[in-house]
Amino acid sequence: MNVSFEDLHKAFENRVRLGIMSALAVNDSLDFTSLKEFLEVTDGNLATHIKKLEQEGFVEVEKSFIDNKPNTSYSMTQTGKKAFEEHLAVLEQIIKSQQ
Amino acid sequence: MNVSFEDLHKAFENRVRLGIMSALAVNDSLDFTSLKEFLEVTDGNLATHIKKLEQEGFVEVEKSFIDNKPNTSYSMTQTGKKAFEEHLAVLEQIIKSQQ
Repeated sequence: MNVSFEDLHKAFENRVRLGIMSALAVNDSLDFTSLKEFLEVTDGNLATHIKKLEQEGFVEVEKSFIDNKPNTSYSMTQTGKKAFEEHLAVLEQIIKSQQ
Repeated sequence: MNVSFEDLHKAFENRVRLGIMSALAVNDSLDFTSLKEFLEVTDGNLATHIKKLEQEGFVEVEKSFIDNKPNTSYSMTQTGKKAFEEHLAVLEQIIKSQQ
C-alpha cells in the first residue's frame, strides 16, 4: 500500500469542514443559510468551521446587500481548491488500496 | 450533491487513525513497529490513536511472545471493518460528487 497519509490536510479532517469544501467545490459561492441547510449543522458550528477555513486561506467571504438585506456568501480560494484536490486525491488512493 | 456527511465516523477523521485502519484492513494483523514505520509517526502518537480505536471497539490487541520476546499485534474487529467500510463509502460519494 503506497498512500501518502501526510498529504492529507488537517484542515479537512473534520467532517463539517470536509462538507463545506465539498459544497464550495461544486458551487461558485454559497450563503451561510444554504451551507447550514446543506450540512444540517448549527449556526455556531458552521461559523467555527468556516472561520478555520478562512484562516487557512481556503475560503473567502463576500459581504453584500441583496434587496437591501445584508448577505454573506462564501467561496473557495484558488489555494483552497488546490489543497482540496490534493486531499481528495489521497482519499482516493486510500479507497483504491482497499479494493 | 447527495452525500451523507453525518455517516463519516469521527473516530476516522484523524489521519493517523485513518492510516491505522487502512493498514489493518489489508493486513490480518500488524505489530506496533510495522504500523509505526508504515505511518511514520512517533511511538506516543501511534499509541494514543490505537488506544482511541481500541476504545471504540474497532481495533483489538493481542499480546504474545515471539522467540521469547514480547510482541504486541493489532487487528481490526468485525465492528471496525464494518464502520471503516461505511466511512470509505461516504468518502467515495464525496469524490464522485466532485467529478
